[in-house]
Amino acid sequence: MPLVYLMRRESFCASHRLHTDLLSDDENRRLFGKCNSPNGHGHNYVLEVSLRGEPDLKTGLLMNLTELKHILQEVILSRVDHRHLNLDVAEFSKTNPTTENLAIVFWRMLEEKISKKLLYEVRVFETEKNSAYYRGE
Amino acid sequence: MPLVYLMRRESFCASHRLHTDLLSDDENRRLFGKCNSPNGHGHNYVLEVSLRGEPDLKTGLLMNLTELKHILQEVILSRVDHRHLNLDVAEFSKTNPTTENLAIVFWRMLEEKISKKLLYEVRVFETEKNSAYYRGE
Amino acid sequence: MPLVYLMRRESFCASHRLHTDLLSDDENRRLFGKCNSPNGHGHNYVLEVSLRGEPDLKTGLLMNLTELKHILQEVILSRVDHRHLNLDVAEFSKTNPTTENLAIVFWRMLEEKISKKLLYEVRVFETEKNSAYYRGE
Amino acid sequence: MPLVYLMRRESFCASHRLHTDLLSDDENRRLFGKCNSPNGHGHNYVLEVSLRGEPDLKTGLLMNLTELKHILQEVILSRVDHRHLNLDVAEFSKTNPTTENLAIVFWRMLEEKISKKLLYEVRVFETEKNSAYYRGE
Amino acid sequence: MPLVYLMRRESFCASHRLHTDLLSDDENRRLFGKCNSPNGHGHNYVLEVSLRGEPDLKTGLLMNLTELKHILQEVILSRVDHRHLNLDVAEFSKTNPTTENLAIVFWRMLEEKISKKLLYEVRVFETEKNSAYYRGE
Amino acid sequence: MPLVYLMRRESFCASHRLHTDLLSDDENRRLFGKCNSPNGHGHNYVLEVSLRGEPDLKTGLLMNLTELKHILQEVILSRVDHRHLNLDVAEFSKTNPTTENLAIVFWRMLEEKISKKLLYEVRVFETEKNSAYYRGE
Repeated sequence: MPLVYLMRRESFCASHRLHTDLLSDDENRRLFGKCNSPNGHGHNYVLEVSLRGEPDLKTGLLMNLTELKHILQEVILSRVDHRHLNLDVAEFSKTNPTTENLAIVFWRMLEEKISKKLLYEVRVFETEKNSAYYRGE
Repeated sequence: MPLVYLMRRESFCASHRLHTDLLSDDENRRLFGKCNSPNGHGHNYVLEVSLRGEPDLKTGLLMNLTELKHILQEVILSRVDHRHLNLDVAEFSKTNPTTENLAIVFWRMLEEKISKKLLYEVRVFETEKNSAYYRGE
Repeated sequence: MPLVYLMRRESFCASHRLHTDLLSDDENRRLFGKCNSPNGHGHNYVLEVSLRGEPDLKTGLLMNLTELKHILQEVILSRVDHRHLNLDVAEFSKTNPTTENLAIVFWRMLEEKISKKLLYEVRVFETEKNSAYYRGE
Repeated sequence: MPLVYLMRRESFCASHRLHTDLLSDDENRRLFGKCNSPNGHGHNYVLEVSLRGEPDLKTGLLMNLTELKHILQEVILSRVDHRHLNLDVAEFSKTNPTTENLAIVFWRMLEEKISKKLLYEVRVFETEKNSAYYRGE
Repeated sequence: MPLVYLMRRESFCASHRLHTDLLSDDENRRLFGKCNSPNGHGHNYVLEVSLRGEPDLKTGLLMNLTELKHILQEVILSRVDHRHLNLDVAEFSKTNPTTENLAIVFWRMLEEKISKKLLYEVRVFETEKNSAYYRGE
Repeated sequence: MPLVYLMRRESFCASHRLHTDLLSDDENRRLFGKCNSPNGHGHNYVLEVSLRGEPDLKTGLLMNLTELKHILQEVILSRVDHRHLNLDVAEFSKTNPTTENLAIVFWRMLEEKISKKLLYEVRVFETEKNSAYYRGE
C-alpha cells in the first residue's frame, strides 16, 4: 500500500509579544527588538498541518479533509484566532510565543486528537518570510 | 506628456481591536464579534500607495521609488509597525482602526509629504480577503 | 465626508464549459478550443466585490464585512460553489459562462441585496492569468 | 558529488467528482458532501514534481527544465488539462479522484518516462488549502 | 449593452539597467543606486493588459483570451522575454527602462494591434513591491 | 528536547546567462535555448534557508531571525543582489549559474557562518515554476 502525505492550510489572526520573564527587560529589548514592544503587535499566521499514512482502499482518503478542518478549528483555531497569544492562551502565559514554540505547542495540541503515527508535520508562518516547522522529533 | 501611475507596496505587522466608545460594550461585541476581543488581535497588513503624474523627461521617473519608500517608512511604517494601533498610535486613540479608517488616516499622514496632485490612492489589506482604499474624494 | 472603497475577496470551485447554442459545434470548437471540451473542466474562481461610499461616523465601517460575507455566501457562493455552472445554475443555462458574463451575472445577483449606489465593482478571476470586472456601466 | 533537488511547478484546470461505486449514494453524500455534487465541480490544480540526483558536471543541470516541462506536458497535462477527471481520464474511471489518488496516479504516469532513482516527489494542490504528495514509499 | 473589463496577466524574465545618457555617471549612481550596476540585474516582470468594451452578444467574449495571449506574445513577449532591455530592445536604447517607461512603451507597442477604444490599461510589476500602469491619458 | 526547523525567505534581483565554456556555442544554444541569450536576462530570485536544531530553553529561539537575516545579507545578498551573476560574482565565473548550482554555491557560502550541524536546506526559486534545493548531501 502506498504511503501518502496530506496537508491542510489554515490561517488565523493574533497578537503576540516576544518576551520572557527569564531575561531582564533590557535583555528582552536587545534580543527581540521591536518584537518586544509592550502592547504587542500581530500577524496573519498561516498554519499547515501534514499527515502521513496509507489512504483508505475504498474511498481514496487518508483522512477526510472536512474532519481535519474541524479538528484544526476545535483544537487550535478556536483558541488562538483573534486573540492575544501571551494574554489569552494559557500555553503561552509562560512560554515565549516564538514561531518555533508555536509549531511545538500546536503539535502537542493536535496529539490529543490525531495519532502520533499519522501526524507528520506542523508548520507555522508568522509572515511570508519567517516560518518554523516541527515533526515530533 | 503621458500621465502614468506608480505603486509601491509595503507591509507591517500590528495589533488592533475594533471598538468604539460611542457604542456600549454590548453593541461593540454584537457589531464586531471576535474583532472586539479585549486584548486585541493582529495582522500582517499590506499597504499600497499609488501616485499619478507625468514622469520626468530625462530620468523616466514619476518619483524615485527609493524616495517613496523612505517617505512611507518615515511617515507611516515607523509609527505603526510592530505596534498596537489603538494603544500606541495617537490617530487611533479615538478613531476605530477599521480598514476603511486606516486608508483614510494613512492618506492624511502622506499629504504632509506628498502633494495632493500626485497622491492617487492609498490601499490597505487587513488580510488577503479584506481591503479598503481611499482616493481623497 | 470621505468616500472610501471596501473590497471582499472570496473563492469558489466550479465546473464550466464554454459553449453557445448560437454557434455550430464546429464553430464552438474553433472559437473555444479546449475550453469547449464536452464534459467541462473547472476552476478555483476568485470573486472580488467592491463597494464605494461614506463610512459610518461612529463605527468607521462602510459595511460590516461579516454582513458582506453573508450576502456573498447567500446570493452567489451557495448557488455556484461545487457546481457545474452550465448544468446547475439557471442563469448560465442559456448564457455562456465566460469570465465576462460571470462578472455581469454576479453583479445582477448582488443588486437584489446591495443598493446600486453602494456597489462599485464585481471582479472574477478564472485563473491567476485571466479575469474580468464589471462596474455597472 | 552533491545530491540536489529540482522542482517544476505546473497547473491545470479540471473537473472532478468525489464518488466511489464501492459505497452507496447515501454514503457518498455523507462522506464527500458538496464534493459529491452529481455534475462535478472543478479546480485550478497545481502540480509540483521534484527530482533528486547529482547534477551534470559540465552543464550544472540535474535535468534540463525544458525536458522536464515537456515530459509533464506529454505524460500528465495533455491528458488532464481542461478535462473531467472521472469521465475523460481512464485512470480515474474506477479510482476516486481524491487529491491523494491524484498524487499516486501522476507518480505512476511519470515512472514511464523518469527513472525511479531520479523521481523524488509528486505534489498536487487541489486548492491553496488542500494538497497531497507522494514519494514512492 | 454592459461595458466590461477583461485582464490578461503574463510574465517575462529580463535584464535591465537604470541609466540615462542625459545625466553624468555620478548623477546616475546617486539617483539609481544599485539599479545602476554596470552589468545590469534582472526581474521576473509581470505584465497585465486590460481591455474595456461590450462583450459580443452571441459568444459572451470581449476578446478571445487566446487571441489576446497571441497578441501579447507577438508584440511584446517575443521581443523582451529572456533579453537585456537596454541592449536587446530598440525602444530602450535611448529610453531609460524604468517601470514607468515600460508601461508607456508597451502601451504603444499594443496600439498597433489593439484599437485605442478597446485598450484600457497596461500595468507592469518589476517586483511584487513596485509597479506602474498607464491608461493612455 | 524537541528538534525544530526554522526557515527565512529573502529575495534578490539578478541577471544571469546559462552558458558553459565546456560546450561549443552551438551546443550551448541547443541546450539552454533562450536562457543562453548573449546579454543575459534576469529574475526576482527567492532564497529560502532552513535551519534544524533545538531551540534555546529560555528564549524559545533556534536562532534569532534578525541574526539569520544579517548573515544572509552579508554572505549572499550583498554579493548577488542587483548584479549579473556570471560577470559580477566570482563563484559563477566558471560555474554555470543554473538553479541547481545556485543552491549548492549558496550552501557553501553559508557554511562559513553557520555550523553544518544547524544548516538544513538552501532553496532557490528562479521563478515560481522552477526551483532547486540542496541539503548538504
